Amino acid sequence: MAVKITGITARDIRFPTSLEGDGSDAIHTDPDYSCAYITLTTSTEAKGFGHTFTIGRGTEIVCEAALALGEFVVGKHLQEITADFAGFWRALANDSQLRWLGPEKGVVHLATCAIVNAVWDLWAKVERKPLWKLLADMTPEELVSVIDFRYISDLLTREEALEILKKGQDGKKEREAELISKGYPAYITSAGWSGYDEQKTRQKCKEALAKGFVRFKAKVGTGIEADRRRLAVMREEIGYDKLLMTDANQRWDVSEAIDWMKQLTEFKPLWIEEPTSPDDVLGHATIAKALKPYNIAVATGEHCQNRVVFKQLFQADSIAYCQIDGCRLGGVNEVLAVLLMAAKLNVPVCPHAGGVGLCQVNQHFSYFDYICVSRTLENRFLEYAEHLHENYKFPIEVKGGHYVLPQIPGFQTEMREASLDTHEYPTGPVWQKLFAEGTFKPPKKH
Amino acid sequence: MAVKITGITARDIRFPTSLEGDGSDAIHTDPDYSCAYITLTTSTEAKGFGHTFTIGRGTEIVCEAALALGEFVVGKHLQEITADFAGFWRALANDSQLRWLGPEKGVVHLATCAIVNAVWDLWAKVERKPLWKLLADMTPEELVSVIDFRYISDLLTREEALEILKKGQDGKKEREAELISKGYPAYITSAGWSGYDEQKTRQKCKEALAKGFVRFKAKVGTGIEADRRRLAVMREEIGYDKLLMTDANQRWDVSEAIDWMKQLTEFKPLWIEEPTSPDDVLGHATIAKALKPYNIAVATGEHCQNRVVFKQLFQADSIAYCQIDGCRLGGVNEVLAVLLMAAKLNVPVCPHAGGVGLCQVNQHFSYFDYICVSRTLENRFLEYAEHLHENYKFPIEVKGGHYVLPQIPGFQTEMREASLDTHEYPTGPVWQKLFAEGTFKPPKKH
Repeated sequence: MAVKITGITARDIRFPTSLEGDGSDAIHTDPDYSCAYITLTTSTEAKGFGHTFTIGRGTEIVCEAALALGEFVVGKHLQEITADFAGFWRALANDSQLRWLGPEKGVVHLATCAIVNAVWDLWAKVERKPLWKLLADMTPEELVSVIDFRYISDLLTREEALEILKKGQDGKKEREAELISKGYPAYITSAGWSGYDEQKTRQKCKEALAKGFVRFKAKVGTGIEADRRRLAVMREEIGYDKLLMTDANQRWDVSEAIDWMKQLTEFKPLWIEEPTSPDDVLGHATIAKALKPYNIAVATGEHCQNRVVFKQLFQADSIAYCQIDGCRLGGVNEVLAVLLMAAKLNVPVCPHAGGVGLCQVNQHFSYFDYICVSRTLENRFLEYAEHLHENYKFPIEVKGGHYVLPQIPGFQTEMREASLDTHEYPTGPVWQKLFAEGTFKPPKKH
Repeated sequence: MAVKITGITARDIRFPTSLEGDGSDAIHTDPDYSCAYITLTTSTEAKGFGHTFTIGRGTEIVCEAALALGEFVVGKHLQEITADFAGFWRALANDSQLRWLGPEKGVVHLATCAIVNAVWDLWAKVERKPLWKLLADMTPEELVSVIDFRYISDLLTREEALEILKKGQDGKKEREAELISKGYPAYITSAGWSGYDEQKTRQKCKEALAKGFVRFKAKVGTGIEADRRRLAVMREEIGYDKLLMTDANQRWDVSEAIDWMKQLTEFKPLWIEEPTSPDDVLGHATIAKALKPYNIAVATGEHCQNRVVFKQLFQADSIAYCQIDGCRLGGVNEVLAVLLMAAKLNVPVCPHAGGVGLCQVNQHFSYFDYICVSRTLENRFLEYAEHLHENYKFPIEVKGGHYVLPQIPGFQTEMREASLDTHEYPTGPVWQKLFAEGTFKPPKKH
């Protein structure tokens, strides 16, 4: 049945998470977890939902960009898009006028991502498969046909991608069955926010251990003494037989990152995540080289703007862990390009998650990566943070420290209508109440 | 006298340049030269004007972002900003929530730039100096105090910057007098747009030669035969004693760029500009190395998102010419950081210009660079394109292939009120007429 996209809406949805310090780090001290939430309506009952994660101010700008991009998608048939998905992706990400505002980065790329993922959600629903399964069932040729190889062919050609995916067909059914039975390993971020006091950190560690988590992450970079205290407290709670990762959220200059982390070696962090600017490929390489003797790896990716920067992070040996985010990259199509480059260079992919809907979205990529691309779980774990899942129609499920593979058709990106209505900014009742109380200032009218 | 910023407006101004093929290249095939135009009103009669260049669709998104950033500037006193300009810059470019949409790139950074430059315009007017002169008269300590060194200290420390600027004080008066008397060397882009036919190209070359230009630029990348024809025609007209530069506007992958340019060596291009993705530091380095034996240098910068990427272009020997754009980087403050890094590594700076108001803005940086930073004109020339200058209240002046130094207080960024009213999108009469004729489709209402 032909499915025609007939309309697009973009909603500014915000949660006042800054009130509790959830999600706080050295740079993002007061995040109000938010998203620009896109709905594609169609000529059928099926709808496509996509979003990009934001942290408050500026969400309205991403919504505006999504509506500007809407004209490239409204009126198209789903089948027309999927028949040349790479072509559609390039037309959207590289419109001859809009690309000037990026290209392929910032607000316009975030909006591109939300729309692209909404199309994938729609496609998966029409095929009655969860997104990971839609991808896993595609042939290598079909998968390669959705990728725009522009600017990455010096690292990965279409032919090399095809070869990796062909190898991935071997044992695919077994790996799928294994994941369905055992789940995908996770690590938890919720215990180590910089805004939590010692008591809350201890309590969060205990809760996570009780739930079966064996991998933890802590924020660092607010101050060396505060960092040492937080890490000491966490190691006391979790012991040294568990994994502990650290995350500086871009806090440092290059030499500062090296000096700082040398003072945290006794806590044996597996990696330091985002030690410096996400744009600094060479800086990450310098840090990685300097920290190697201390057994601290470098991880980054949640702010990595596109496949071109990931390509260079791989080429320069900048990262030992690749943290893709399918709500920052230009959606599924670009994520696939990065998964394949990572596979070629044997860099494990540990997606960014948390935020609003990032667990929902990024889980699919890890499942697909194991089933069809890297074929290994070694050094691979999916981030988990515990907030806001209740706002989703089909929330993710985590059991015994593992993600449970969803069987619901689509991308799991649909939020509950009541949550949307309540948290719409600035008109929703949650925000109206906060404005009335004076807890938040309402936005200025222009 | 205290000058308080009391309000901000953002206007979406567009010129239908795509109708004539002006500004067309291999990637941006139909640009409608545009800008998001910012006005800061104050408690006095003085106003600050700043803008960022765009090429049509999406300009409204930058306007929206500028209004969101407006809350950080409205209510502030000019003197409060200039007393800690680096601090103000960081607060604007790294707001704890808005930075998630970048950071320091794309729409939000373009909007930051427009606001920052409007503040500089205001400051220069209050000081009754053209911007270049305001900068040239600042002490090394004052100049360094406006720069945010975050993420670049591994290449350039505050102390090194100070040292470069102190050296620049020597002979400053003489260099200023020299520039005022002789002007600053320019090159012309207007003859080589890819949308021009042979006759128009020849005519444009003849006109430029008659005006005294001795340096020309041609677009390449539309097709090898078309490129060879365009370059042959231009060399016929200008001869081989003049300089000819080429510009691919990000058209190629890395190996494609190398192969393509090898086929154009007989036309002796001085540089190939934007051979590939502006994000590809390592790709540019590979191209530069491969083309060195052919005496073709690599230039880039007009799409370089911030000082962190410029830092790496310098570190990796990616570029032999640095093409800053003070309407893409986060305004004067960030441009100064790049000028100083370039000076440290002896990379000549040849600013991007053309577009809407880019000549107006970027000329100031070349003058300041010569007077106080690099102290040389060797391999340095300012881009010039001939369109749209009549829309400015005080248009730039070019004589005998040289920019004439302006003496009007401010940044020269103020447009004529009549031009603004006529070209405001979509309500201005120019656009209403084009919609009525059916030449352009009006934007969709959301």
